[in-house]
Amino acid sequence: MTRGFAEAEFAARCARAQAEMAAAGLGALLLTTEPEIRYYTGFLTRFWESPTRPWFLVLPPDGKPVAVIPAIGEALMAQAYVGQIKTWRAPNLDDDGVSLLINTLNALRGDAPVGMARGIESHARMPVASLMAVQNHVPITGDGHLTRRLRLIKSDAEITKIETACQIANRAFDRMAEIAQPGVALERVFRDFQRLCLEEGADWVPYLAGASGPEGYADVISPATATPLAAGDVLMLDTGLVWDGYFCDFDRNFSLGKPSGGVADAHAQLVEATQAGFEAAKPGATGADLFKAMDRICTGGSGGSDAGRLGHGLGMQLTEWPSLIAEDETVLQPGMVLTLEPGVEVMPGKLMVHEEDIVITQTGARYLSRPAPPEIVVLG
Amino acid sequence: MTRGFAEAEFAARCARAQAEMAAAGLGALLLTTEPEIRYYTGFLTRFWESPTRPWFLVLPPDGKPVAVIPAIGEALMAQAYVGQIKTWRAPNLDDDGVSLLINTLNALRGDAPVGMARGIESHARMPVASLMAVQNHVPITGDGHLTRRLRLIKSDAEITKIETACQIANRAFDRMAEIAQPGVALERVFRDFQRLCLEEGADWVPYLAGASGPEGYADVISPATATPLAAGDVLMLDTGLVWDGYFCDFDRNFSLGKPSGGVADAHAQLVEATQAGFEAAKPGATGADLFKAMDRICTGGSGGSDAGRLGHGLGMQLTEWPSLIAEDETVLQPGMVLTLEPGVEVMPGKLMVHEEDIVITQTGARYLSRPAPPEIVVLG
Repeated sequence: MTRGFAEAEFAARCARAQAEMAAAGLGALLLTTEPEIRYYTGFLTRFWESPTRPWFLVLPPDGKPVAVIPAIGEALMAQAYVGQIKTWRAPNLDDDGVSLLINTLNALRGDAPVGMARGIESHARMPVASLMAVQNHVPITGDGHLTRRLRLIKSDAEITKIETACQIANRAFDRMAEIAQPGVALERVFRDFQRLCLEEGADWVPYLAGASGPEGYADVISPATATPLAAGDVLMLDTGLVWDGYFCDFDRNFSLGKPSGGVADAHAQLVEATQAGFEAAKPGATGADLFKAMDRICTGGSGGSDAGRLGHGLGMQLTEWPSLIAEDETVLQPGMVLTLEPGVEVMPGKLMVHEEDIVITQTGARYLSRPAPPEIVVLG
Repeated sequence: MTRGFAEAEFAARCARAQAEMAAAGLGALLLTTEPEIRYYTGFLTRFWESPTRPWFLVLPPDGKPVAVIPAIGEALMAQAYVGQIKTWRAPNLDDDGVSLLINTLNALRGDAPVGMARGIESHARMPVASLMAVQNHVPITGDGHLTRRLRLIKSDAEITKIETACQIANRAFDRMAEIAQPGVALERVFRDFQRLCLEEGADWVPYLAGASGPEGYADVISPATATPLAAGDVLMLDTGLVWDGYFCDFDRNFSLGKPSGGVADAHAQLVEATQAGFEAAKPGATGADLFKAMDRICTGGSGGSDAGRLGHGLGMQLTEWPSLIAEDETVLQPGMVLTLEPGVEVMPGKLMVHEEDIVITQTGARYLSRPAPPEIVVLG
């Protein structure tokens, strides 16, 4: 009945978490966000786009997870990897699942506290007032980054999904000449690129950013504007499309006509930096090692830029733990999926970025995206 | 420089909030989520898809909002309606913006506490541990639903954006015969419908749900499966597409071939219920009045279903305050944008839903989506 994976995948995830819970003295785990709940159950829906209703999952010391959810989700949750499903008719202005959650947690946790993610990159997807009410009746503590740690190592089935997403994006990028010419508004390019992603097999396109300008661009998170592409522009598109619940996340740069010397050099430098990160990527290396390998090429080793990192984890979310920064001590292991995302300044106020997706193997790493050549692709 | 609106729109929003803050004795307002921050500043980016970095906005007692954000966002935030922009290089494993936020709040709040949204439908998009640290150094209290209340009433410019999104979806639904025939997998229909939305002008398609089956469907939040459409199926698609930062949210049902009597009757009943809600919608009525008008047609007035509500607010988010439930006491005012979303049971385990978008006017309401006729549209 479960979607996307054999039931054994979810059983193994829960068993690993329960072993860690026992070692850490946790009586239950409380999950509130989409990726956390999907990780343990396979519950996949775009309904999370609505902020109205909280959804809760409780992982007991053994057995299947227990869902504490709005009644509207019962039929779909019944197809996921869960045991009991407890529902309330949400929204309820007086008690929006809080007492049901408190009772469930206290029935399952024994005498031990309940763990939940509280550290960097996490949040609780529930009202602060509800969380305070739960904390008044249930001992809550941190989860020791338990779920984050488990999610770091992807199964072969997960890697296949991420690679499929990458291949879809590869094919969409191969078709850029169909949609990007001088005179076309950047917002039109954004729409058309999302269309290409769907045509090539994406389930949906949660993330698209990009920019275009002569000698590079000023930032990499802006939405598109009506400004038309111009001959000589560098056009960058960065996409996070989803296939069966898993993301790719990489970008490509294009030159509209012959690139300037500065742009050509910057692109070659970015590919060189990416390759340096790739070569450093192997079991036993740390995230910091990858950062330093890339930063040496990008800045001469000055320690990075305002972007703050040169890559990150990837999987059920566009960006996951860890961040490739100088301080990251994550020891790489086979099955970790990462992006390598160096950036360089072409001139003051003008930058270029590049990104590839890789997986750590037994002996090194393997590209999941098709790596770009040093020469920037010329359109037109 | 601001995107999407004249600067006066943001100045008015901030001034209204600041008047309410003064009345409530709040020294500053802390905002952490995408719609809250965009509401006061116009800061629009799809970069929120990455959960890594927290973003903070502080509304002081007077003047422009103060941004406390990762350095990667500075260039884009500088184009928004903000005064000071304080940045840190995120992610920072030791102090991910927390001390900068504490100092900013304490410098701006005077002797008064800081308000933040803590009630139903809200959450704090920041680590719980960071929130606890802030609370140890800054008095934090609820915001009395201040931002939620302000966002309820849309300006003419906001209504135009929502109506534009609705018109795009109208045109996409008009083209359903191009993509939906017996034998086509539902997941293919989902991909193609998103493509149609983009072709018709959507910036992106954050939400698409739907289902297909004989005599209706079992739930309305599932992702698509590979199951092919079959002659006699009822196909429902529910889309939340975005144009310039504003959503539409409505659905359409289609019959693949001649509908059964039960399906034809259910569709007519849904349209009748929607029209009853529309006729009840006028200044002075409450959300509960609309619920009751629709529930009378759908269930004979039994009090609703597991979906929990029969419509909701709409705007910068797919779903906003209020929920149309029997307990909702929101008094409707001109400028409120709502969805009417009745559902009926065709037979046990088989339901059908319908949805339209409306705006409250001085004298009643106006449809923003093009209202569906009682007869279900037949494809093929």
